[in-house]
Amino acid sequence: MSTHVFDQALALTAQAEGDYLGASHPAYWNMVGPYGGITAATLLNAVMQHPKRLGVPVALTVNYASALVAGPFRVVARPVRTNRSTQHWTVELWQTDAQGDDGVVTTATALTALPRTTWGVDEVAMPAVPPPSAVPPVPLFKGVEWIQRYEVRPVSGGIPRVWDGGGTTSLSQLWVRDAEPRPLDHLSLAALCDVFYPRVWLRRATQVPAGTVSMTVYFHASAEQLDATGTGCLFAQAQAQAIRNGFFDQSAQLWNEAGQLLATSHQVVYYKA
Amino acid sequence: MSTHVFDQALALTAQAEGDYLGASHPAYWNMVGPYGGITAATLLNAVMQHPKRLGVPVALTVNYASALVAGPFRVVARPVRTNRSTQHWTVELWQTDAQGDDGVVTTATALTALPRTTWGVDEVAMPAVPPPSAVPPVPLFKGVEWIQRYEVRPVSGGIPRVWDGGGTTSLSQLWVRDAEPRPLDHLSLAALCDVFYPRVWLRRATQVPAGTVSMTVYFHASAEQLDATGTGCLFAQAQAQAIRNGFFDQSAQLWNEAGQLLATSHQVVYYKA
Repeated sequence: MSTHVFDQALALTAQAEGDYLGASHPAYWNMVGPYGGITAATLLNAVMQHPKRLGVPVALTVNYASALVAGPFRVVARPVRTNRSTQHWTVELWQTDAQGDDGVVTTATALTALPRTTWGVDEVAMPAVPPPSAVPPVPLFKGVEWIQRYEVRPVSGGIPRVWDGGGTTSLSQLWVRDAEPRPLDHLSLAALCDVFYPRVWLRRATQVPAGTVSMTVYFHASAEQLDATGTGCLFAQAQAQAIRNGFFDQSAQLWNEAGQLLATSHQVVYYKA
Repeated sequence: MSTHVFDQALALTAQAEGDYLGASHPAYWNMVGPYGGITAATLLNAVMQHPKRLGVPVALTVNYASALVAGPFRVVARPVRTNRSTQHWTVELWQTDAQGDDGVVTTATALTALPRTTWGVDEVAMPAVPPPSAVPPVPLFKGVEWIQRYEVRPVSGGIPRVWDGGGTTSLSQLWVRDAEPRPLDHLSLAALCDVFYPRVWLRRATQVPAGTVSMTVYFHASAEQLDATGTGCLFAQAQAQAIRNGFFDQSAQLWNEAGQLLATSHQVVYYKA
Protein backbone atom coordinates (compact mmCIF):
# COMPACT_ATOMS: atom_id res chain seq x y z
CA MET A 1 0.00 0.00 0.00
CA SER A 2 1.11 3.53 -0.80
CA THR A 3 2.62 5.50 2.03
CA HIS A 4 1.58 8.81 0.47
CA VAL A 5 -0.47 10.87 2.92
CA PHE A 6 -3.31 11.14 0.38
CA ASP A 7 -3.63 7.35 0.19
CA GLN A 8 -3.42 7.08 3.95
CA ALA A 9 -6.21 9.65 4.33
CA LEU A 10 -8.65 7.79 2.11
CA ALA A 11 -7.73 4.27 3.18
CA LEU A 12 -10.73 1.99 3.67
CA THR A 13 -10.95 -1.44 5.27
CA ALA A 14 -13.62 -3.73 3.86
CA GLN A 15 -15.93 -5.25 6.48
CA ALA A 16 -18.17 -6.86 3.89
CA GLU A 17 -18.75 -6.35 0.18
CA GLY A 18 -19.22 -2.60 -0.31
CA ASP A 19 -19.08 -1.92 3.42
CA TYR A 20 -15.94 -0.16 4.63
CA LEU A 21 -14.41 1.41 7.69
CA GLY A 22 -12.33 4.58 7.39
CA ALA A 23 -11.34 7.52 9.55
CA SER A 24 -10.97 11.25 9.04
CA HIS A 25 -7.29 12.14 8.75
CA PRO A 26 -5.70 15.14 10.50
CA ALA A 27 -3.46 15.90 7.49
CA TYR A 28 -6.53 17.01 5.50
CA TRP A 29 -8.33 18.87 8.28
CA ASN A 30 -10.15 22.03 7.30
CA MET A 31 -11.56 24.58 9.73
CA VAL A 32 -14.53 22.47 10.91
CA GLY A 33 -14.14 18.93 9.60
CA PRO A 34 -12.09 17.42 6.81
CA TYR A 35 -11.39 19.06 3.43
CA GLY A 36 -14.37 18.34 1.16
CA GLY A 37 -12.07 17.07 -1.56
CA ILE A 38 -10.70 14.29 0.62
CA THR A 39 -14.24 13.22 1.52
CA ALA A 40 -15.18 13.13 -2.16
CA ALA A 41 -12.12 11.01 -2.92
CA THR A 42 -12.92 8.68 -0.02
CA LEU A 43 -16.45 8.00 -1.29
CA LEU A 44 -15.11 7.43 -4.79
CA ASN A 45 -12.49 5.11 -3.32
CA ALA A 46 -15.29 2.94 -1.92
CA VAL A 47 -16.53 2.51 -5.48
CA MET A 48 -13.04 1.90 -6.87
CA GLN A 49 -12.34 -0.83 -4.30
CA HIS A 50 -15.68 -2.59 -4.80
CA PRO A 51 -15.14 -6.06 -6.30
CA LYS A 52 -18.16 -5.63 -8.61
CA ARG A 53 -16.99 -2.33 -10.11
CA LEU A 54 -17.32 -2.03 -13.87
CA GLY A 55 -15.02 0.44 -15.63
CA VAL A 56 -13.71 3.82 -14.56
CA PRO A 57 -15.33 6.94 -13.09
CA VAL A 58 -17.33 9.18 -15.42
CA ALA A 59 -19.41 11.21 -12.93
CA LEU A 60 -19.46 11.74 -9.19
CA THR A 61 -21.85 13.83 -7.10
CA VAL A 62 -21.11 14.26 -3.40
CA ASN A 63 -23.57 15.86 -0.98
CA TYR A 64 -22.12 17.23 2.25
CA ALA A 65 -25.13 16.74 4.49
CA SER A 66 -23.41 17.39 7.79
CA ALA A 67 -19.88 18.06 9.04
CA LEU A 68 -17.69 15.02 9.62
CA VAL A 69 -16.07 14.85 13.01
CA ALA A 70 -12.64 13.46 13.86
CA GLY A 71 -12.63 9.70 14.17
CA PRO A 72 -13.89 6.60 12.41
CA PHE A 73 -16.69 6.39 9.85
CA ARG A 74 -18.40 3.78 7.75
CA VAL A 75 -18.80 3.98 3.96
CA VAL A 76 -21.39 1.87 2.15
CA ALA A 77 -21.16 1.65 -1.66
CA ARG A 78 -23.84 -0.12 -3.66
CA PRO A 79 -24.05 -0.71 -7.42
CA VAL A 80 -27.75 0.00 -7.98
CA ARG A 81 -27.76 -0.73 -11.72
CA THR A 82 -25.18 -2.48 -13.86
CA ASN A 83 -25.66 -2.20 -17.61
CA ARG A 84 -23.53 -3.66 -20.39
CA SER A 85 -21.00 -0.82 -20.35
CA THR A 86 -22.11 1.50 -17.52
CA GLN A 87 -22.78 1.14 -13.80
CA HIS A 88 -24.63 3.44 -11.39
CA TRP A 89 -23.65 3.72 -7.73
CA THR A 90 -25.02 5.13 -4.52
CA VAL A 91 -22.66 5.73 -1.62
CA GLU A 92 -23.32 6.79 1.96
CA LEU A 93 -20.92 7.82 4.69
CA TRP A 94 -22.17 7.12 8.20
CA GLN A 95 -20.67 8.49 11.38
CA THR A 96 -21.49 8.72 15.05
CA ASP A 97 -21.48 12.34 16.16
CA ALA A 98 -20.40 13.87 19.47
CA GLN A 99 -23.89 13.24 20.88
CA GLY A 100 -23.57 9.54 20.09
CA ASP A 101 -26.09 9.65 17.24
CA ASP A 102 -25.26 7.54 14.21
CA GLY A 103 -26.43 9.05 10.93
CA VAL A 104 -25.74 9.72 7.26
CA VAL A 105 -23.20 12.54 7.00
CA THR A 106 -22.40 12.41 3.28
CA THR A 107 -24.20 10.91 0.30
CA ALA A 108 -22.93 10.35 -3.20
CA THR A 109 -23.91 8.95 -6.56
CA ALA A 110 -21.39 7.84 -9.15
CA LEU A 111 -21.29 6.54 -12.70
CA THR A 112 -18.56 4.24 -13.92
CA ALA A 113 -18.18 3.01 -17.50
CA LEU A 114 -15.96 0.78 -19.57
CA PRO A 115 -13.38 2.90 -21.39
CA ARG A 116 -14.11 3.52 -25.06
CA THR A 117 -12.28 5.52 -27.69
CA THR A 118 -14.41 7.78 -29.90
CA TRP A 119 -14.28 10.95 -31.92
CA GLY A 120 -13.75 13.85 -29.54
CA VAL A 121 -12.85 17.49 -29.14
CA ASP A 122 -12.08 19.88 -26.29
CA GLU A 123 -14.62 22.64 -26.73
CA VAL A 124 -13.18 24.89 -24.04
CA ALA A 125 -9.48 25.60 -24.53
CA MET A 126 -7.11 26.21 -21.66
CA PRO A 127 -6.49 29.96 -21.26
CA ALA A 128 -3.09 31.27 -22.33
CA VAL A 129 -1.22 31.51 -19.04
CA PRO A 130 2.40 31.36 -17.92
CA PRO A 131 3.69 27.81 -17.25
CA PRO A 132 3.93 26.61 -13.64
CA SER A 133 7.69 27.18 -13.64
CA ALA A 134 7.03 30.90 -14.18
CA VAL A 135 4.55 31.20 -11.30
CA PRO A 136 6.04 30.97 -7.81
CA PRO A 137 4.27 28.73 -5.31
CA VAL A 138 2.63 30.66 -2.50
CA PRO A 139 2.27 29.42 1.05
CA LEU A 140 -1.44 29.85 1.75
CA PHE A 141 -3.39 29.93 4.98
CA LYS A 142 -0.78 28.69 7.42
CA GLY A 143 -2.83 27.04 10.10
CA VAL A 144 -5.29 25.32 7.77
CA GLU A 145 -3.89 21.85 7.44
CA TRP A 146 -5.23 20.48 4.13
CA ILE A 147 -3.92 23.31 1.96
CA GLN A 148 -0.39 22.36 3.08
CA ARG A 149 -0.92 19.11 1.16
CA TYR A 150 -0.98 21.03 -2.13
CA GLU A 151 1.54 23.02 -4.08
CA VAL A 152 -0.44 26.06 -5.21
CA ARG A 153 0.78 28.58 -7.79
CA PRO A 154 -1.87 31.32 -8.12
CA VAL A 155 -2.14 32.84 -11.59
CA SER A 156 -5.09 35.16 -10.94
CA GLY A 157 -7.83 35.58 -8.39
CA GLY A 158 -5.75 34.78 -5.32
CA ILE A 159 -7.20 35.30 -1.87
CA PRO A 160 -7.86 39.05 -1.39
CA ARG A 161 -5.22 40.84 0.67
CA VAL A 162 -7.69 43.51 1.72
CA TRP A 163 -11.25 42.63 2.76
CA ASP A 164 -12.81 45.91 1.66
CA GLY A 165 -15.92 44.67 -0.15
CA GLY A 166 -14.39 45.80 -3.44
CA GLY A 167 -14.25 42.59 -5.47
CA THR A 168 -15.19 42.63 -9.14
CA THR A 169 -14.87 39.00 -10.30
CA SER A 170 -15.12 35.51 -8.86
CA LEU A 171 -12.62 33.97 -11.30
CA SER A 172 -9.58 32.20 -9.84
CA GLN A 173 -6.85 30.49 -11.86
CA LEU A 174 -4.01 28.47 -10.40
CA TRP A 175 -1.51 25.74 -11.04
CA VAL A 176 -1.81 23.01 -8.44
CA ARG A 177 -0.63 19.49 -7.58
CA ASP A 178 0.06 17.31 -4.57
CA ALA A 179 2.85 18.90 -2.50
CA GLU A 180 4.37 15.45 -2.02
CA PRO A 181 4.56 14.13 -5.60
CA ARG A 182 1.94 11.49 -6.46
CA PRO A 183 0.88 10.45 -9.96
CA LEU A 184 -2.58 11.76 -10.77
CA ASP A 185 -5.48 9.29 -10.68
CA HIS A 186 -9.27 9.62 -10.54
CA LEU A 187 -9.13 9.91 -6.75
CA SER A 188 -6.70 12.82 -6.59
CA LEU A 189 -8.43 14.46 -9.56
CA ALA A 190 -11.74 14.33 -7.65
CA ALA A 191 -10.09 15.84 -4.58
CA LEU A 192 -8.52 18.66 -6.60
CA CYS A 193 -11.92 19.72 -7.93
CA ASP A 194 -12.63 21.16 -4.47
CA VAL A 195 -9.33 23.05 -4.10
CA PHE A 196 -10.81 26.53 -4.56
CA TYR A 197 -11.65 28.88 -1.71
CA PRO A 198 -15.22 30.29 -1.56
CA ARG A 199 -16.04 32.37 -4.66
CA VAL A 200 -18.05 34.88 -2.63
CA TRP A 201 -14.88 35.83 -0.72
CA LEU A 202 -13.29 36.94 -3.98
CA ARG A 203 -16.30 38.51 -5.68
CA ARG A 204 -17.19 40.60 -2.66
CA ALA A 205 -13.75 40.85 -1.02
CA THR A 206 -15.50 39.84 2.18
CA GLN A 207 -14.75 36.80 4.31
CA VAL A 208 -17.98 35.11 5.37
CA PRO A 209 -18.74 31.59 6.64
CA ALA A 210 -19.17 29.28 3.64
CA GLY A 211 -19.22 25.57 2.95
CA THR A 212 -19.80 23.29 -0.03
CA VAL A 213 -23.10 21.42 0.16
CA SER A 214 -22.97 19.51 -3.13
CA MET A 215 -20.21 18.93 -5.69
CA THR A 216 -20.32 17.15 -9.04
CA VAL A 217 -17.26 16.02 -10.97
CA TYR A 218 -17.25 14.85 -14.59
CA PHE A 219 -14.11 12.90 -15.46
CA HIS A 220 -12.94 13.42 -19.03
CA ALA A 221 -9.43 11.99 -18.60
CA SER A 222 -8.56 8.67 -20.16
CA ALA A 223 -6.10 6.34 -18.43
CA GLU A 224 -3.48 7.43 -20.95
CA GLN A 225 -4.05 11.10 -20.15
CA LEU A 226 -3.80 10.43 -16.42
CA ASP A 227 -0.56 8.51 -16.97
CA ALA A 228 0.83 11.28 -19.18
CA THR A 229 -0.06 13.86 -16.53
CA GLY A 230 1.80 11.97 -13.84
CA THR A 231 3.04 14.28 -11.10
CA GLY A 232 2.75 17.41 -13.27
CA CYS A 233 0.71 20.46 -12.35
CA LEU A 234 -2.95 20.95 -13.22
CA PHE A 235 -4.27 24.30 -14.37
CA ALA A 236 -7.42 24.81 -12.31
CA GLN A 237 -9.99 27.52 -12.91
CA ALA A 238 -13.20 28.31 -11.06
CA GLN A 239 -15.93 30.93 -11.26
CA ALA A 240 -19.38 31.53 -9.84
CA GLN A 241 -22.35 32.12 -12.12
CA ALA A 242 -24.90 33.27 -9.52
CA ILE A 243 -24.40 34.33 -5.90
CA ARG A 244 -27.77 34.82 -4.28
CA ASN A 245 -29.87 34.14 -1.20
CA GLY A 246 -27.35 32.17 0.76
CA PHE A 247 -26.00 29.90 -1.97
CA PHE A 248 -23.67 30.31 -4.91
CA ASP A 249 -22.59 27.95 -7.65
CA GLN A 250 -19.05 27.34 -8.88
CA SER A 251 -18.02 25.98 -12.27
CA ALA A 252 -14.50 24.63 -12.52
CA GLN A 253 -12.20 23.19 -15.18
CA LEU A 254 -8.94 21.31 -14.65
CA TRP A 255 -6.41 20.90 -17.46
CA ASN A 256 -3.01 19.20 -17.44
CA GLU A 257 0.13 21.01 -18.55
CA ALA A 258 -0.41 19.69 -22.08
CA GLY A 259 -3.72 21.58 -22.19
CA GLN A 260 -5.99 18.54 -22.04
CA LEU A 261 -9.23 19.11 -20.13
CA LEU A 262 -9.17 16.31 -17.54
CA ALA A 263 -12.22 17.18 -15.45
CA THR A 264 -15.05 19.66 -15.20
CA SER A 265 -16.75 20.26 -11.89
CA HIS A 266 -19.61 22.19 -10.35
CA GLN A 267 -20.60 22.84 -6.81
CA VAL A 268 -23.16 24.75 -4.81
CA VAL A 269 -21.94 26.47 -1.68
CA TYR A 270 -23.77 27.78 1.37
CA TYR A 271 -22.71 31.22 2.57
CA LYS A 272 -23.72 33.70 5.23
CA ALA A 273 -23.98 37.36 4.40
CA MET B 1 -55.36 19.48 -9.11
CA SER B 2 -54.00 21.20 -12.21
CA THR B 3 -55.22 19.88 -15.51
CA HIS B 4 -52.04 21.06 -17.25
CA VAL B 5 -50.39 18.17 -19.10
CA PHE B 6 -47.12 18.82 -17.25
CA ASP B 7 -48.82 18.33 -13.88
CA GLN B 8 -50.62 15.27 -15.16
CA ALA B 9 -47.32 13.79 -16.33
CA LEU B 10 -45.60 14.09 -12.97
CA ALA B 11 -48.58 13.26 -10.80
CA LEU B 12 -47.76 10.98 -7.88
CA THR B 13 -50.07 9.08 -5.55
CA ALA B 14 -48.74 8.55 -2.03
CA GLN B 15 -48.85 4.95 -0.83
CA ALA B 16 -47.02 5.72 2.40
CA GLU B 17 -44.84 8.57 3.61
CA GLY B 18 -42.30 9.21 0.84
CA ASP B 19 -43.51 6.24 -1.21
CA TYR B 20 -45.39 7.13 -4.39
CA LEU B 21 -46.92 5.57 -7.46
CA GLY B 22 -46.65 7.32 -10.81
CA ALA B 23 -46.67 6.41 -14.48
CA SER B 24 -44.78 7.49 -17.56
CA HIS B 25 -46.92 9.82 -19.64
CA PRO B 26 -47.21 9.57 -23.45
CA ALA B 27 -47.29 13.38 -23.84
CA TYR B 28 -43.62 13.56 -22.80
CA TRP B 29 -42.38 10.50 -24.68
CA ASN B 30 -38.93 10.73 -26.25
CA MET B 31 -37.48 8.26 -28.73
CA VAL B 32 -36.87 5.43 -26.23
CA GLY B 33 -38.51 6.29 -22.92
CA PRO B 34 -39.77 9.53 -21.42
CA TYR B 35 -38.07 12.93 -21.79
CA GLY B 36 -35.33 13.15 -19.16
CA GLY B 37 -36.64 16.51 -17.99
CA ILE B 38 -40.02 15.06 -17.02
CA THR B 39 -38.30 12.29 -15.07
CA ALA B 40 -36.17 14.86 -13.23
CA ALA B 41 -39.29 16.86 -12.39
CA THR B 42 -41.09 13.72 -11.22
CA LEU B 43 -38.31 12.81 -8.77
CA LEU B 44 -38.24 16.39 -7.51
CA ASN B 45 -42.00 16.27 -7.15
CA ALA B 46 -41.63 13.33 -4.75
CA VAL B 47 -39.52 15.59 -2.56
CA MET B 48 -41.90 18.54 -2.92
CA GLN B 49 -44.90 16.43 -1.87
CA HIS B 50 -43.14 14.85 1.12
CA PRO B 51 -44.80 15.96 4.37
CA LYS B 52 -41.40 16.34 6.08
CA ARG B 53 -39.91 18.64 3.42
CA LEU B 54 -38.01 21.66 4.72
CA GLY B 55 -37.74 24.64 2.40
CA VAL B 56 -37.33 24.86 -1.36
CA PRO B 57 -35.03 23.15 -3.88
CA VAL B 58 -31.41 24.31 -4.08
CA ALA B 59 -29.77 21.38 -5.88
CA LEU B 60 -30.92 18.28 -7.72
CA THR B 61 -28.85 15.52 -9.31
CA VAL B 62 -30.66 12.87 -11.36
CA ASN B 63 -28.93 9.72 -12.62
CA TYR B 64 -30.56 7.97 -15.55
CA ALA B 65 -29.45 4.42 -14.80
CA SER B 66 -31.72 2.68 -17.27
CA ALA B 67 -34.47 3.59 -19.71
CA LEU B 68 -37.97 3.90 -18.26
CA VAL B 69 -40.61 1.90 -20.03
CA ALA B 70 -44.25 2.84 -20.57
CA GLY B 71 -46.38 2.12 -17.54
CA PRO B 72 -46.41 2.54 -13.77
CA PHE B 73 -43.41 3.17 -11.53
CA ARG B 74 -42.70 3.69 -7.86
CA VAL B 75 -40.79 6.66 -6.44
CA VAL B 76 -39.27 6.55 -2.97
CA ALA B 77 -38.04 9.82 -1.44
CA ARG B 78 -36.19 9.85 1.86
CA PRO B 79 -34.84 12.82 3.87
CA VAL B 80 -31.48 11.41 4.96
CA ARG B 81 -30.38 14.42 6.96
CA THR B 82 -32.39 17.38 8.24
CA ASN B 83 -30.39 20.30 9.59
CA ARG B 84 -31.65 23.58 11.00
CA SER B 85 -32.05 25.25 7.61
CA THR B 86 -31.11 22.57 5.05
CA GLN B 87 -32.27 19.07 4.21
CA HIS B 88 -30.62 16.35 2.11
CA TRP B 89 -32.65 13.84 0.11
CA THR B 90 -32.17 10.60 -1.74
CA VAL B 91 -34.76 9.50 -4.27
CA GLU B 92 -35.12 6.28 -6.25
CA LEU B 93 -37.45 5.41 -9.09
CA TRP B 94 -38.27 1.71 -9.33
CA GLN B 95 -39.92 0.03 -12.27
CA THR B 96 -40.65 -3.46 -13.53
CA ASP B 97 -39.17 -3.94 -16.98
CA ALA B 98 -40.46 -5.94 -19.92
CA GLN B 99 -38.75 -9.06 -18.55
CA GLY B 100 -40.65 -8.69 -15.28
CA ASP B 101 -37.58 -7.64 -13.31
CA ASP B 102 -38.13 -4.92 -10.72
CA GLY B 103 -35.16 -2.61 -10.26
CA VAL B 104 -33.86 0.91 -9.74
CA VAL B 105 -34.14 2.83 -12.99
CA THR B 106 -33.33 6.36 -11.82
CA THR B 107 -31.61 7.71 -8.71
CA ALA B 108 -31.46 11.26 -7.42
CA THR B 109 -30.14 13.36 -4.61
CA ALA B 110 -31.57 16.73 -3.70
CA LEU B 111 -30.94 19.59 -1.33
CA THR B 112 -33.72 21.81 -0.02
CA ALA B 113 -33.25 24.84 2.21
CA LEU B 114 -35.27 27.48 3.99
CA PRO B 115 -35.35 30.65 1.86
CA ARG B 116 -33.02 33.41 3.02
CA THR B 117 -32.26 36.84 1.61
CA THR B 118 -28.60 37.83 1.39
CA TRP B 119 -26.20 39.97 -0.55
CA GLY B 120 -25.99 38.63 -4.08
CA VAL B 121 -24.89 39.22 -7.63
CA ASP B 122 -25.31 37.54 -11.00
CA GLU B 123 -21.76 36.90 -12.13
CA VAL B 124 -22.72 35.70 -15.62
CA ALA B 125 -24.90 38.16 -17.50
CA MET B 126 -27.49 37.10 -20.02
CA PRO B 127 -26.11 37.56 -23.56
CA ALA B 128 -27.54 40.43 -25.60
CA VAL B 129 -30.11 38.71 -27.79
CA PRO B 130 -33.35 39.67 -29.53
CA PRO B 131 -36.47 39.38 -27.32
CA PRO B 132 -38.71 36.32 -27.77
CA SER B 133 -41.22 38.39 -29.74
CA ALA B 134 -38.53 38.95 -32.40
CA VAL B 135 -37.66 35.26 -32.74
CA PRO B 136 -40.29 33.10 -34.45
CA PRO B 137 -41.14 29.78 -32.80
CA VAL B 138 -40.01 26.80 -34.83
CA PRO B 139 -41.80 23.49 -34.96
CA LEU B 140 -39.09 20.98 -34.14
CA PHE B 141 -38.86 17.26 -34.63
CA LYS B 142 -42.43 16.46 -35.56
CA GLY B 143 -42.84 12.93 -34.39
CA VAL B 144 -41.00 13.35 -31.10
CA GLU B 145 -43.76 13.93 -28.61
CA TRP B 146 -42.18 15.81 -25.70
CA ILE B 147 -40.79 18.67 -27.77
CA GLN B 148 -44.38 19.50 -28.80
CA ARG B 149 -44.96 20.42 -25.14
CA TYR B 150 -42.59 23.38 -25.48
CA GLU B 151 -42.63 26.61 -27.43
CA VAL B 152 -39.07 26.88 -28.76
CA ARG B 153 -37.63 30.00 -30.39
CA PRO B 154 -34.04 29.20 -31.50
CA VAL B 155 -31.65 32.14 -31.35
CA SER B 156 -28.47 30.32 -32.35
CA GLY B 157 -27.22 26.76 -32.60
CA GLY B 158 -30.42 25.22 -33.90
CA ILE B 159 -30.43 21.63 -35.06
CA PRO B 160 -28.14 21.31 -38.10
CA ARG B 161 -29.98 21.23 -41.43
CA VAL B 162 -27.11 19.37 -43.07
CA TRP B 163 -25.35 16.48 -41.33
CA ASP B 164 -21.99 16.99 -43.01
CA GLY B 165 -19.61 16.69 -40.05
CA GLY B 166 -18.83 20.38 -40.39
CA GLY B 167 -19.85 21.78 -37.01
CA THR B 168 -17.68 24.35 -35.26
CA THR B 169 -19.38 25.05 -31.92
CA SER B 170 -21.64 23.26 -29.45
CA LEU B 171 -23.35 26.44 -28.24
CA SER B 172 -27.15 26.63 -28.51
CA GLN B 173 -29.29 29.56 -27.41
CA LEU B 174 -33.07 29.60 -27.41
CA TRP B 175 -36.15 31.14 -25.88
CA VAL B 176 -38.40 28.46 -24.44
CA ARG B 177 -41.51 27.94 -22.29
CA ASP B 178 -44.37 25.52 -21.89
CA ALA B 179 -46.44 25.48 -25.09
CA GLU B 180 -49.61 25.45 -22.99
CA PRO B 181 -49.04 28.39 -20.61
CA ARG B 182 -48.14 27.38 -17.06
CA PRO B 183 -46.51 29.62 -14.41
CA LEU B 184 -42.89 28.61 -13.84
CA ASP B 185 -42.09 26.69 -10.66
CA HIS B 186 -39.14 24.60 -9.49
CA LEU B 187 -40.59 21.52 -11.20
CA SER B 188 -40.91 23.04 -14.67
CA LEU B 189 -37.56 24.81 -14.24
CA ALA B 190 -35.92 21.44 -13.53
CA ALA B 191 -37.57 19.93 -16.60
CA LEU B 192 -36.44 22.81 -18.82
CA CYS B 193 -32.80 22.25 -17.88
CA ASP B 194 -32.89 19.14 -20.09
CA VAL B 195 -34.49 20.83 -23.11
CA PHE B 196 -31.34 20.86 -25.29
CA TYR B 197 -30.60 18.32 -27.98
CA PRO B 198 -27.23 16.47 -27.80
CA ARG B 199 -24.29 18.89 -28.05
CA VAL B 200 -22.26 16.41 -30.11
CA TRP B 201 -24.88 16.61 -32.88
CA LEU B 202 -24.18 20.33 -33.21
CA ARG B 203 -20.42 20.35 -32.68
CA ARG B 204 -19.84 17.60 -35.22
CA ALA B 205 -22.93 18.10 -37.42
CA THR B 206 -23.42 14.37 -37.07
CA GLN B 207 -26.45 12.61 -35.64
CA VAL B 208 -25.36 9.79 -33.34
CA PRO B 209 -27.18 7.88 -30.59
CA ALA B 210 -26.88 9.88 -27.34
CA GLY B 211 -28.57 9.96 -23.96
CA THR B 212 -28.15 11.86 -20.69
CA VAL B 213 -26.76 9.71 -17.89
CA SER B 214 -26.57 12.31 -15.11
CA MET B 215 -27.92 15.84 -14.75
CA THR B 216 -27.46 18.37 -11.96
CA VAL B 217 -29.59 21.48 -11.50
CA TYR B 218 -28.78 24.36 -9.16
CA PHE B 219 -31.83 26.53 -8.46
CA HIS B 220 -31.00 30.20 -8.00
CA ALA B 221 -34.55 31.53 -8.36
CA SER B 222 -36.37 32.89 -5.33
CA ALA B 223 -40.13 32.47 -5.02
CA GLU B 224 -40.49 36.13 -6.02
CA GLN B 225 -38.43 35.59 -9.17
CA LEU B 226 -40.47 32.53 -10.11
CA ASP B 227 -43.68 34.48 -9.58
CA ALA B 228 -42.37 37.41 -11.62
CA THR B 229 -41.37 35.03 -14.43
CA GLY B 230 -44.84 33.54 -14.61
CA THR B 231 -45.63 32.20 -18.06
CA GLY B 232 -42.87 34.24 -19.75
CA CYS B 233 -40.10 32.75 -21.83
CA LEU B 234 -36.75 31.60 -20.47
CA PHE B 235 -33.53 32.27 -22.31
CA ALA B 236 -31.71 28.93 -22.26
CA GLN B 237 -28.12 28.41 -23.29
CA ALA B 238 -26.03 25.23 -23.36
CA GLN B 239 -22.52 24.28 -24.40
CA ALA B 240 -20.17 21.32 -24.05
CA GLN B 241 -16.74 21.71 -22.52
CA ALA B 242 -15.26 18.32 -23.44
CA ILE B 243 -16.50 15.70 -25.89
CA ARG B 244 -14.37 12.60 -25.58
CA ASN B 245 -14.37 8.81 -25.32
CA GLY B 246 -18.11 8.28 -25.42
CA PHE B 247 -19.23 11.00 -23.02
CA PHE B 248 -19.59 14.76 -23.18
CA ASP B 249 -20.56 17.33 -20.61
CA GLN B 250 -23.04 20.16 -21.04
CA SER B 251 -23.18 23.40 -19.04
CA ALA B 252 -26.43 25.31 -19.22
CA GLN B 253 -27.88 28.58 -17.93
CA LEU B 254 -31.52 29.64 -17.84
CA TRP B 255 -32.52 33.29 -17.45
CA ASN B 256 -35.96 34.88 -17.39
CA GLU B 257 -36.90 37.72 -19.72
CA ALA B 258 -35.82 40.22 -17.08
CA GLY B 259 -32.29 38.79 -17.32
CA GLN B 260 -32.27 37.06 -13.92
CA LEU B 261 -30.29 33.81 -13.82
CA LEU B 262 -32.86 31.33 -12.48
CA ALA B 263 -30.96 28.06 -12.79
CA THR B 264 -27.61 26.65 -13.83
CA SER B 265 -27.33 23.05 -14.90
CA HIS B 266 -24.79 20.46 -15.96
CA GLN B 267 -25.09 17.05 -17.44
CA VAL B 268 -22.98 14.25 -18.78
CA VAL B 269 -24.21 12.50 -21.88
CA TYR B 270 -23.36 9.14 -23.40
CA TYR B 271 -22.81 9.13 -27.16
CA LYS B 272 -21.79 6.67 -29.83
CA ALA B 273 -19.30 7.68 -32.47
